[in-house]
Formats: sequence, C-alpha cells, structure tokens
Amino acid sequence: MSPENSVGVVAPRRVCFIEPLQLTSGAALPGFELVFETYGMLNAQCSNAVLVCHALSGSHHVAGHYADDPENLGWWDNLVGPGKALDTRKFFVVGVNNLGGCYGSTGPLSINPETAKRYGADFPLVTVEDWVAAQARLADHLGIVTWAAVIGGSLGGMQALEWSLQFPERIRHAMVIASAPKLSAQNIAFNEVARQAIISDPDFHGGYYADHGVVPTSGLRLARMVGHITYLSDSQMGEKFGRRLRHGEHKFSYDVDFEIESYLRYQGNKFASFFDANTYLMTTKALDYFDPAYHFDGNLAAALARAKASFLVASFSTDWRFSPARSREIVFALLHNRLRVVYAEIDCGAGHDSFLLDDEHYHALLRAYLENIAV
Amino acid sequence: MSPENSVGVVAPRRVCFIEPLQLTSGAALPGFELVFETYGMLNAQCSNAVLVCHALSGSHHVAGHYADDPENLGWWDNLVGPGKALDTRKFFVVGVNNLGGCYGSTGPLSINPETAKRYGADFPLVTVEDWVAAQARLADHLGIVTWAAVIGGSLGGMQALEWSLQFPERIRHAMVIASAPKLSAQNIAFNEVARQAIISDPDFHGGYYADHGVVPTSGLRLARMVGHITYLSDSQMGEKFGRRLRHGEHKFSYDVDFEIESYLRYQGNKFASFFDANTYLMTTKALDYFDPAYHFDGNLAAALARAKASFLVASFSTDWRFSPARSREIVFALLHNRLRVVYAEIDCGAGHDSFLLDDEHYHALLRAYLENIAV
Repeated sequence: MSPENSVGVVAPRRVCFIEPLQLTSGAALPGFELVFETYGMLNAQCSNAVLVCHALSGSHHVAGHYADDPENLGWWDNLVGPGKALDTRKFFVVGVNNLGGCYGSTGPLSINPETAKRYGADFPLVTVEDWVAAQARLADHLGIVTWAAVIGGSLGGMQALEWSLQFPERIRHAMVIASAPKLSAQNIAFNEVARQAIISDPDFHGGYYADHGVVPTSGLRLARMVGHITYLSDSQMGEKFGRRLRHGEHKFSYDVDFEIESYLRYQGNKFASFFDANTYLMTTKALDYFDPAYHFDGNLAAALARAKASFLVASFSTDWRFSPARSREIVFALLHNRLRVVYAEIDCGAGHDSFLLDDEHYHALLRAYLENIAV
Repeated sequence: MSPENSVGVVAPRRVCFIEPLQLTSGAALPGFELVFETYGMLNAQCSNAVLVCHALSGSHHVAGHYADDPENLGWWDNLVGPGKALDTRKFFVVGVNNLGGCYGSTGPLSINPETAKRYGADFPLVTVEDWVAAQARLADHLGIVTWAAVIGGSLGGMQALEWSLQFPERIRHAMVIASAPKLSAQNIAFNEVARQAIISDPDFHGGYYADHGVVPTSGLRLARMVGHITYLSDSQMGEKFGRRLRHGEHKFSYDVDFEIESYLRYQGNKFASFFDANTYLMTTKALDYFDPAYHFDGNLAAALARAKASFLVASFSTDWRFSPARSREIVFALLHNRLRVVYAEIDCGAGHDSFLLDDEHYHALLRAYLENIAV
C-alpha cells in the first residue's frame, strides 16, 4: 500500500465519562475513560461516522502510525485510509479501545479510586452489551447521533450486531464479519483452556499480579498459542509450515523440531510481552456470554426483531472458529425479520484471521458496500 | 454388555528383555520390561494372535477387569471378549503397555540402573518404530511368528501400519482405525501447546519432578484439556453440552459457567491424577515424528511398497483430528501398491473418540473383517 493511501500520522485521544456506568453483571463503574482515534472529518450533518470495533487483541489504533513509532501500523490499516475500502475521504472513522482493555481505556491495569491500587481482579467483568453502552457515550461525546455504519470482525462483529439491537435508531448499517451469534461449546472450550492456563500460572496471584510486580507470562503465552491455532485454517497451516523442520532433522528433544512449533512459540511470547492477563480473561468471558437470543428462549429471530439497520454479513470459507454456517444463522434470523442483508461467503484460505488480511474479493466487497452508503 | 461376553478377571504379566534395544534417536536401552495382558488361547499353529496397540493414554489393559478392581474395565472391553467383534473364542489377543509408558513398562518412572533414581527426563525419546521393535520382542517371547492381525486406533493405528512396514512377513492383517500417515501442522501445533503447558509448569523441574517429590499437575491438566477438545466433534460437543449453564445463570466470575467448562476441568483433573508427564511429552513426540514417507521424499506410496499385509482402514465422518481424508491418503498409497484394502468411512458423530465407542456400524465392520481372517 503506497504512503498516499495512508491516514499518516495519528494520535490517540482520551475522554473521561464521569457518570456511573451500570454493567450487565450488576456491578457499576463510578466513571471511566476511553482511548480512541479518529480518521477523516466528521461532516456537517454528522452523517458519515463509522465505528470500528476491535476483537480480542485489537485496540483503538485502527489505521496510520504514531509519529514516534512509524512501524506500528493500525491493525486495519489495509482497509482504512484515503482511497481504501473504508475511505477516510468519505467517512469519519472512529476506533476505540474497549472498556476493560489494556491499551489505555479504563481496565484492570487502571488505578481503582477506592483502593488507590490497580484494579487487577477487582475490575468487574464487562460484556459486549457494556462495551456498546460505553461506545454510545463516546458517540454522544463526538456529537454522533447515528453511525453511518458500525463494523467489526469476530468479536468486533458481535459489537456491530449488538449496536443494532441496543440502539436500533443509532446505526444505519451493521457490518458483521467472520462472526457468530454466540459461541459454540467448542468455542467456549478453547476459551476455557486459555483461561485455565492463565489462572493456573503461579504468577497470576488470583489476578493481583501487579501487586506482586510480576506478570503471568507463561499462562498468557499458552493462551495465545491455543487461540492462534484456532485463528488459522488447517490447510493454510499445512501450506505455510507443513512438516518443515527447523534444523533439517528430528532433534529427539523438546526443543523446536518443526517450523510450526517455532512460529507458535514466537506468537505466544510476543503476545505475552504486552497483553494484560486480566483483560484477556475478561474478554474471553465477554465472548462466552454474548448471546442475543439468551433472553428470547434461544430464538435468534425473535432477538433480532428490534433491529432496524441494514446488514452486511461476511464469512470466510476456511474459518473453522466462526464458520460460514454461524454467519448464515445471523442471516436467516435477519431475513426472518425482513431486514436488508447482503451476505457473502468469501473463498479465502486463511481461516478466521482472513478478516484482517488483504484478500482482494473481501476488500472489493467491503468497498462496494461502503460506497453505497449515503452520507 | 452382559457379563458372559466379558473376558472376566484378568491379570497383567511382565516380561524382561535383557538384550539392549537400539532406538531411532541413536540412544539405546540396556534392556527393558513390558507389561502385557492376553485374552483367549493361542492355538497350536500360533496363527490366531492379534496385537492391540494403544493410543496416547491407553495401556495393556484392553479387556476385562482385575479381581480387586471390578470397575476398571479395559479400554476396549466393548470390542474384545467372547462373542464380541474381536472374539476371544477365536483369537488370542495381546495388549501391551508401550515402551516409555507409565503403566508398568519401562519408562520415565522406572529406575535408571545407571543412577539408581527414576529416569525422568533421562529416559530417551522412543518412536512408533521403537515401540514396534519392542512389541516384536514380546511376540518372540510369546512364540508368535506372525500376527493374524495388528489393530489400533489413532496412534495405535500408526503402530499397526508400522508393523506392516518393519515386519512385512510377521503381520497378515493391519487394521488402521481413525489414524493418519503423519500429523498435519495443526496436529503438531496442538501437541506443542500441550508440551509447553507441561514444560512451563514450575513443578516440571525439567522433567526431574520425581526427584522433587512433585508432579506437574496443572500442566498435565491443561495438556489433557486441549487434547480432549480435539478428540470430540464440534457437533457432538454442541449436542452434549451446548451452552447449557451449570448454575442456570451467568456467574460473572471465572468459576464454571457452562457445563462444557465443568466437563473439561473434570477430564483434565482426572487425567493429571494418574498419567506421567514425561510419558505424555514423549508420546506426543512419537506422534509428531511418525511419517513412513520421511525417508522416501514424502512419497507415501513408495514408503508402503514393502508392505505385504491386507489392510482394513476405517475413519469417522466427524473426526477432525484425523479426518477421513487422512485415512484416504493411506488407502490410495496402499492401492497404488496393489495391496488388499477394505476402507470404510463411518458416519458417527463422536469425532476422533468414535474408535473407542459402541457405534453399531463400526463394530459390525470390525466383526465382519475379523470373521473373515483365517486362523
């Protein structure tokens, strides 16, 4: 991507909300801060705003780079910029670090005003519904009554869907990519392994590791390794790594034999060096709990009856974490309610992570859909 | 299953081999013991012997129960007994705990004669080839020149296949169930997560935990949890557990919310209470390394050219660990060599674990195949 397609140098902003926030769990936060970035200009009618929701490990840093860190491109920089599929010449794009995150928004790493220490395990569990409620405060702050679109992949797609339910009048288009209406038992099982890896790390200290000056690195590393396997497709892993040996022969030890082992260890170590364990735990729970049909006897169509947005739903053929069948459940429930839906199943080999990648058909789909949104 | 179909009370036996065993890794064992069980009677021609090879967590205890432990049925008791598919009125059935195992055969828990302490991490890595070489010594000891059949599921199926290659004259039928000719990158990745869980447990002590009087319980527990997910099918997990809540509501804590979490924790805890961590590590490496085509430039057909046995290959429709496609690779390579092959893809919802279960068509298939073996 050439530099002229980049939003260029960006800077995060911070907003403090002093009104208490009632959470789904029954707990409340006395107030909270959100860190966010914006790209492009909000138009006079405030009709061109697009909210980008992040998934498990994402952040508010969606596009561009910081002046002092030119290598650290936003996680969806391939999609967001002038002339890109989500065109910042047309749209005012907002990225936000979710409540409970570890990139600057109020979360387990923040100071608990009641104890003057980091929240750690005392930070309440927040849900997708809570994130959306917090994002609505940000919209108010920015003067955005109605989003032109809310877009996200994976857990981000769940937030886009939740926006259409919690604030049906405030979202014109929900773009739900590589997502699911709820986790399957297998999805929950993988999350539970990740959580147990973190919780059973002796450096976890019941979530109060900050008080001990340590970090549950090895638990986080395992959590990321097992997660990472589910983000990639079997076939892509086979093509990319296969059984290729790191040292050309079997080592008959527990050092790295196969390239895939080296790759997984690298990914695990990298992640554990910067991500907060309590945020990870909390986010997997937000994933597990998300289920709009929960209060509708499992009837998703009934749950989605209050939505008014138009929808783009997209899935990827080799995604086995949130397979196309899971997206079709959403599509069926939307169609049942006679809502406008564009659905695409994209033939892409990269598994769940496809939503982050450069696939030509995928980007063309998003571009076409976004071009048709009137602002 | 009625008691009259059971082999009844059984007792393990032990044999000591004093000749050194050269291992694939280059290391050698000065001698070794194997624990085994037999069911039925070896006929005068010694032509009715069937070797049952176990998978990752299996043992020599294939059928029946011990006098002092009537609840502890053999792991394939539903298949092996008088009148059962593997009929002990016809066949002399042998189960053996593999070399490096933790059920009594020489392994990491055994005393190293050189140090008078448990081997622990000093026990050499053994491979599928080494297991088969050790099993051949047992065959010699029992007077079995040629097995009527060698049968196994998963890693056990790899041993059956290896028998047909290492000792083509000593096996008439290889029964390879829910297996694969080699692990995929994804298979290796899951093994690597399990290994890292064990190795990073502070109680692992580099494999010398016995010297410290501890066991890396939490690592083993995680290893089993992640393994267990891959043994079950997504659909079966959905049917069996779905999103059913343990306490009828979301707990907003890291205690058990969903039944699947409770099940996984139970399976992990149970396994960690009896299985040896070094054996687990070693066995996953044996799985990773198995690849008959390794010395044939990846050409499986060339690798299988030396086989002379007849084959039964069976796979299960919902097995995503070793999918039917993996079994078909074996079948194609066998057919290329004009070997006799029966192949069946069994429609069973239970994923990889199907090979241990009671599926009617599966058992009928094995029964029919075994009935046709002349003894």
